[in-house]
Amino acid sequence: MWEQYPEIRDRLEKVELVIEQNLKSKVKPMEELLYALSNAGGKRLRPAFVILSSGFGNNGDDNILNAAAGIEILHMATLIHDDIIDGADVRRGHPTINHLHGDKMAVYMGDYLLTRAVMLLSRAMPEERMERLARGIKSICEAEVEQFYSRFHYEISLVTYLKRIGRKTAMMFSYSCGEGAFLSKTPYEYARILAKFGFYYGMAFQIQDDITNLTRDSAETGKPKGNDIQEGVITLPFILAMRNSSDLKECVKQMFLEGKPEHKDIMCITREILHAGGIDGARTWIERYRQKAKSMLMSLPNRREKEILAALTEQIGH
Amino acid sequence: MWEQYPEIRDRLEKVELVIEQNLKSKVKPMEELLYALSNAGGKRLRPAFVILSSGFGNNGDDNILNAAAGIEILHMATLIHDDIIDGADVRRGHPTINHLHGDKMAVYMGDYLLTRAVMLLSRAMPEERMERLARGIKSICEAEVEQFYSRFHYEISLVTYLKRIGRKTAMMFSYSCGEGAFLSKTPYEYARILAKFGFYYGMAFQIQDDITNLTRDSAETGKPKGNDIQEGVITLPFILAMRNSSDLKECVKQMFLEGKPEHKDIMCITREILHAGGIDGARTWIERYRQKAKSMLMSLPNRREKEILAALTEQIGH
Repeated sequence: MWEQYPEIRDRLEKVELVIEQNLKSKVKPMEELLYALSNAGGKRLRPAFVILSSGFGNNGDDNILNAAAGIEILHMATLIHDDIIDGADVRRGHPTINHLHGDKMAVYMGDYLLTRAVMLLSRAMPEERMERLARGIKSICEAEVEQFYSRFHYEISLVTYLKRIGRKTAMMFSYSCGEGAFLSKTPYEYARILAKFGFYYGMAFQIQDDITNLTRDSAETGKPKGNDIQEGVITLPFILAMRNSSDLKECVKQMFLEGKPEHKDIMCITREILHAGGIDGARTWIERYRQKAKSMLMSLPNRREKEILAALTEQIGH
Repeated sequence: MWEQYPEIRDRLEKVELVIEQNLKSKVKPMEELLYALSNAGGKRLRPAFVILSSGFGNNGDDNILNAAAGIEILHMATLIHDDIIDGADVRRGHPTINHLHGDKMAVYMGDYLLTRAVMLLSRAMPEERMERLARGIKSICEAEVEQFYSRFHYEISLVTYLKRIGRKTAMMFSYSCGEGAFLSKTPYEYARILAKFGFYYGMAFQIQDDITNLTRDSAETGKPKGNDIQEGVITLPFILAMRNSSDLKECVKQMFLEGKPEHKDIMCITREILHAGGIDGARTWIERYRQKAKSMLMSLPNRREKEILAALTEQIGH
């Protein structure tokens, strides 16, 4: 993915070293598991955003690499805990920690990474920025808890959904951009724009993820197709399709009343969502956030980093 | 418990307000759960140790109360996650979060509290002390993971056990004392002694906890009697008893080979541990750590706080 941007690739390779350094543990089976997880082929989008955003200031501080590594480790922690919540067996084509070693082990692995991340970030960032980090993690937890409590509530509103993905995903993209900019002493105005850019990018990114959950096979995503519906999690394509089709709404209501949906129900519902324009509708929302993200970039000075951010924004959903 | 020490009780009541303030959330079902957990009757030993240790310096900083609250919230987080690992249904006489809402909810509740705790502590403590906190949390996770991997290994050594409880329990007591002392600008020499005192206290405290797991009924402890053995966790009374009785060792080996022990096996093994002197042996280790803790106190100036710490040390196991 980063081969076409060698300047970013080179710095991401340094971030890898920092990540590896920070996953060291005297408890060897734990260290091995974490190395395997780290090397399972994540795209390293968040660290890339830290680095790219730092390009609008006076680049070059080691703390930028440390912060980038810390944010990726934090992301790994949330993935481990998400996989427990989702009961996922596979992530990025590898068995999950909860699948291999049970939920219990996955709990502590996640805690451990969360702590390593906060530790690394608290060294990289000045104290007065730590509150932002804590708010970010708090938001993710609140969003996941809210999502859990809202399962099988088919009448969840568009606003609730957008708030949720904002907290769950977009805030950390925003944080990545904002902290990268801060660490390179980017002028305040640009840093604010970059943080907003990250937020809009994150919104588009999560909507695409929710579409993929409905449309792509588990071989590609690592999660069973329609996994969200099965867990009773209502996403944007669903919400928009139900607006267009009262039949679908009635059908979903019945399905959830009967308990956890079966595979054949999910296949059927997925088709209905497609027919009722749920996927297309969700894609217009991606477009909306993509435009917002791009309009933020327009206010930034012309740099190579701006081109790359624009290209990444263009790639969502393609 | 604190009625006999009104000066500590009054300050602990202020700590309660800080805890409550920091458990506030826009997600109301979450807030209610956390308030219930917080009010379930914990002894607040760790915050008390922060406050008591601060008494050897220039008392009175608000940050002492914030740090005390942060350490208790951190402790609450580890309890929630421990209960998932242990599959515990009851804690302090109340149903656990994992029992009420499933493991998944308990994961995020714990993450949320862990973050709130780190957030509060990062405001209370200067940046250069945050590394100690991260090391402390890392230790707890490592100990729990090591314990999990060692389940049903009946030949675990005394050294492995002592290292584990050091990481799992004693380090946070040490941290509580050390940070309380630091925040009140206690002379370095006393702060170091207090941190050591906390460590020894914590060792004695955990050994007592492991004895209680074998000897007391679930009505008192909230956990089923012999819960540790059932989970394959080998504690000190066990290790010492096996040294004295090769019959017991053979019996445990057989029991673990057959898989998870049944209730009747546990009752039998518990009696054998008692007969082989495992409980008495463990009590001599409590005594050893109690003496070490008390010898630390002897090097401290005579203050009311010293008397209270000595009394608390005396109370372990009585």
